[in-house]
Amino acid sequence: MKKDYTRPLDIKHGRVDMGHGAGGKAAAQLIEELFLAAFDNPYLRQGDDGARLPLPSFPAGEGRLVMATDGHVVSPLFFPGGDVGCLSVHGTVNDVAMSGATPLWLSASFILEEGFPLIELQRIVRSMAAAARAAGVPIVTGDTKVVEKGKGDGVFISTTGVGVVPPGVDIAGCNARAGDVLLLSGPIGDHGVAVLSQRESLAFETTIESDTAALHTLVAAMLHAAPGAVRVLRDPTRGGLATTLNEIAKQSGVGMLLQEAAIPVRPQVDAACELLGLDPLYVANEGKLVAVCAPEAADAVLAAMRAHPLGAEAARIGEVTTDPHHFVQMATRFGGRRVVDWLSGEQLPRIC
Amino acid sequence: MKKDYTRPLDIKHGRVDMGHGAGGKAAAQLIEELFLAAFDNPYLRQGDDGARLPLPSFPAGEGRLVMATDGHVVSPLFFPGGDVGCLSVHGTVNDVAMSGATPLWLSASFILEEGFPLIELQRIVRSMAAAARAAGVPIVTGDTKVVEKGKGDGVFISTTGVGVVPPGVDIAGCNARAGDVLLLSGPIGDHGVAVLSQRESLAFETTIESDTAALHTLVAAMLHAAPGAVRVLRDPTRGGLATTLNEIAKQSGVGMLLQEAAIPVRPQVDAACELLGLDPLYVANEGKLVAVCAPEAADAVLAAMRAHPLGAEAARIGEVTTDPHHFVQMATRFGGRRVVDWLSGEQLPRIC
Ligand SMILES: Nc1ncnc2c1ncn2[C@@H]1O[C@H](COP(=O)(O)OP(=O)(O)OP(=O)(O)O)[C@@H](O)[C@H]1O
Ligand SMILES: Nc1ncnc2c1ncn2[C@@H]1O[C@H](COP(=O)(O)OP(=O)(O)OP(=O)(O)O)[C@@H](O)[C@H]1O
Ligand SMILES: [Mg+2]
Ligand SMILES: [Mg+2]
Ligand SMILES: [Mg+2]
Ligand SMILES: [Mg+2]
Ligand SMILES: [Mg+2]
Ligand SMILES: [Mg+2]
Repeated sequence: MKKDYTRPLDIKHGRVDMGHGAGGKAAAQLIEELFLAAFDNPYLRQGDDGARLPLPSFPAGEGRLVMATDGHVVSPLFFPGGDVGCLSVHGTVNDVAMSGATPLWLSASFILEEGFPLIELQRIVRSMAAAARAAGVPIVTGDTKVVEKGKGDGVFISTTGVGVVPPGVDIAGCNARAGDVLLLSGPIGDHGVAVLSQRESLAFETTIESDTAALHTLVAAMLHAAPGAVRVLRDPTRGGLATTLNEIAKQSGVGMLLQEAAIPVRPQVDAACELLGLDPLYVANEGKLVAVCAPEAADAVLAAMRAHPLGAEAARIGEVTTDPHHFVQMATRFGGRRVVDWLSGEQLPRIC
Repeated sequence: MKKDYTRPLDIKHGRVDMGHGAGGKAAAQLIEELFLAAFDNPYLRQGDDGARLPLPSFPAGEGRLVMATDGHVVSPLFFPGGDVGCLSVHGTVNDVAMSGATPLWLSASFILEEGFPLIELQRIVRSMAAAARAAGVPIVTGDTKVVEKGKGDGVFISTTGVGVVPPGVDIAGCNARAGDVLLLSGPIGDHGVAVLSQRESLAFETTIESDTAALHTLVAAMLHAAPGAVRVLRDPTRGGLATTLNEIAKQSGVGMLLQEAAIPVRPQVDAACELLGLDPLYVANEGKLVAVCAPEAADAVLAAMRAHPLGAEAARIGEVTTDPHHFVQMATRFGGRRVVDWLSGEQLPRIC
């Protein structure tokens, strides 16, 4: 069972390990006890995918910006369905969109390893440019650093996105209430399995492609379908759906009850996870979102999702409950019930 | 003599080399022919330290944001006068301020190497937090990735800053005109020499400290002293003062004439450069700015600089000229005249 406390980080003797980058419990602890402890401010304390920021001298509810950042260190750099370039656009556009904001601009900071072939760099940069153009979010400023061979790994790309929140929109991780409905935009696990199969040179019968995609137009369609009904949005990236739902449950002080049978997973992904010893609930996605919705509007939002190409396989997967322990529980296919905890250690390193 | 063309980048067979990260001619070529060619958009084409961005639905001249980003890969991570943490705050605050904008918020993306001691990470993060607090620019969102031992180098930090341009302010690299005055906020070369001496374990008679500092309050004082008079601002980081002035000359389509005797260099820095075979004109600074100013207001701006702690040793170093070749020339101490070209190859790797 999930404990609400953990041993504090041993900063004096400890060292960074791969789990600190996996997006699960160890990462959350490092961020809380080392980064947030030092940077402490109300924007960061919101704990959402992007920070919501009031521009000075605006009436309340207007002039609200969102800022989000992600570093991308995926290995290998090219994988079925994408590469580090388009991923670095999609990941950050999505974190801006998860506040209900319209993404406007991106910055890109490149850390290149000496000796990296320019032709591969160009392929990555062109993929990035195409993704930015398709999303309508230009890369407006950048930076280029080079480190010696053996001090980097090809290409690392950190992108930052800025967007504006339309008036009337209030979406945040702390807004879920008991009775709300959980919606998922499509099948889970594709991205993680695609990267891992490439890394391990696994040949499955059919190639599993990453779901990497920009979700802001899907979000716009959802908000338009039922204004005010969407309370929380989040993209289940590192740590997967399980960790994302635990984050929201903690932020909102609620529980959740999932219906295992309702959670879409492609059969090939299921089979690959079986083979690799993974649980799709903990595998990263890069083109999916989970929404917490007012119950009366859930059908309208779900219909809007299904009408969008990136939400064609959207599903209602459970509901928000009252639970002082903030557990995410799951009604299993076999009629049982179990707690779905946060990702604890490291599952798939360098997945994004 | 400086040529206006170079051989195009050999993308097909070429590889990333350390010069591509040095901020000089090779870096400018990589950015132009590989990155800008792909990302092409009017914001990026401005070619300034930060992008100036119009928020939708604002009257012209209002609601203008600035966004700037820099990756920080300095080696070693700690050096006299600073560390990668405070540097990553100052560098990005300064690039926002160089558009005359008031910096408001920062994001921070960390790429950590497995095995890095948490106690050193905490020292860096605390230094960063202190710098952000002192500057009044909070770190509002972040990201944490970990790469395997040998795939990174301790800590890389990419920061992005967002600010707003006050109404009436129009500062850009293309605004310099013949007859304008060149002002420099203080002695050059401190940062580069501080990092290099630490790296090479050189013991000079006196420790040379990095000048790393946030310059936005200095900028505010300058703009206040003579509204409309400051046309261009730039921080001479990688590539040093020489490269920065060449960038501005190119953007504005002008020439420049420097007075060697007027350019402040600390005697210890001069001596260290002599020893290390460096020219202070090409050595990175992290707490200095160069300003191009309307001639009638130059005295007022200079006085405002000297009244600010970060501009106490500010000096008038030359003027803008008409020159179809866009040369930066220098009247030497000995009465001669020479062309001061861009930094060409790599001088000091991983200086910031
Ligand atoms: N990889 C990139 N993609 C797109 N634009 C880039 C890239 N790298 C740099 N730029 C752009 O090139 C210009 C020069 O960047 P540069 O990093 O040299 O400036 P700076 O940040 O002021 O200097 P420094 O990084 O030394 O502090 C800026 O307009 C920047 O936005
Ligand atoms: N080094 C850091 N310093 C400050 N805040 C951080 C840092 N790393 C992460 N955060 C904050 O922690 C929260 C969770 O970040 P996280 O990166 O897990 O979210 P995400 O970007 O949505 O997920 P992913 O990175 O897997 O796409 C965010 O509010 C983020 O701003
Ligand atoms: Mg996210
Ligand atoms: Mg993210
Ligand atoms: Mg830069
Ligand atoms: Mg600059
Ligand atoms: Mg800079
Ligand atoms: Mg992140």
